[in-house]
Amino acid sequence: MIIESIVTTLNEEGEANFAPMGATIREGELLIRPYKDSVTYRNLVATGTAVVNLTDNCRLFAESAISSPQFSTFPAELVPGLVLTDACSYYECRVSDADTASARATFRCEILKKGILREFIGFNRAKNAIIEAAILATRVRFLGAAKIREEYRRLSEIVHKTGGEQEAQAMRYLQDYVERQ
Amino acid sequence: MIIESIVTTLNEEGEANFAPMGATIREGELLIRPYKDSVTYRNLVATGTAVVNLTDNCRLFAESAISSPQFSTFPAELVPGLVLTDACSYYECRVSDADTASARATFRCEILKKGILREFIGFNRAKNAIIEAAILATRVRFLGAAKIREEYRRLSEIVHKTGGEQEAQAMRYLQDYVERQ
Repeated sequence: MIIESIVTTLNEEGEANFAPMGATIREGELLIRPYKDSVTYRNLVATGTAVVNLTDNCRLFAESAISSPQFSTFPAELVPGLVLTDACSYYECRVSDADTASARATFRCEILKKGILREFIGFNRAKNAIIEAAILATRVRFLGAAKIREEYRRLSEIVHKTGGEQEAQAMRYLQDYVERQ
Repeated sequence: MIIESIVTTLNEEGEANFAPMGATIREGELLIRPYKDSVTYRNLVATGTAVVNLTDNCRLFAESAISSPQFSTFPAELVPGLVLTDACSYYECRVSDADTASARATFRCEILKKGILREFIGFNRAKNAIIEAAILATRVRFLGAAKIREEYRRLSEIVHKTGGEQEAQAMRYLQDYVERQ
């Protein structure tokens, strides 16, 4: 079972990076699988710590999928790292094992702390549509803008039928990005 | 903002009905919009109470979308009604206003109690894909089985990539249903 998260890592200068990433969360540990050309990969190798944030704020997924934003945070307690202020829950983690043999690495991380900040909103089709739209946006060069525009028509219908202002904004943000490609 | 829920209602004989339904949840009240030929509509008119359950168990959405299942429950506290044992959170409600002019009625409900049982798991693409697949299954006569089979190929790819056994089972359950149409 893979849960979509925003992974926060720091480089050796303490600069933060926010990356949307699927995480496999188990009892006491989790797996994340960044590509080896990603900032998350470099930071994990350099520092060995991360915070895995679960949030229902889909705007954060849209932004971090296609740009390098800085989000509001507060310091983690047990690792050098940053927790998203708008996380519903989060995991402070330390890398216990790294498999870096293929293009996509696998980091097994020990969960040192789980924090809960607020309730996750539940199944909202618009938020889910934004997650799918953000994933498609990262594949625009591979799939082509025409194919993505077609998918976006279907997804934006769901966003407008079941979402609020946050979801409408996130959809426009991604649509603008795809139009510029 | 519409959150996908399982609405539990009782008829005058106390028999339970479970229906997947989008709910607009606000401060102190919520809206549900059942079609007038649905059991939920008849029960709300007859009894004026409901329990709106939020759950991340997508199998419950798959089953209640295309059949009339009975799920494990316990009694609500402030209304005659049933709470899903596998709800993450739930709202015990009483109808305060009903607009029944069109084919789809709008019930405005006062929230008498909000209960929290466990944490909602977060964004899981497989669970979201099941929600979309369940909605498509209810439209099989309208959209045609061929169109739905095509969408199911896309959705089942997401289920197998990001889901667990519960999601795989729910996908097969819906696929079997569509094959029988």
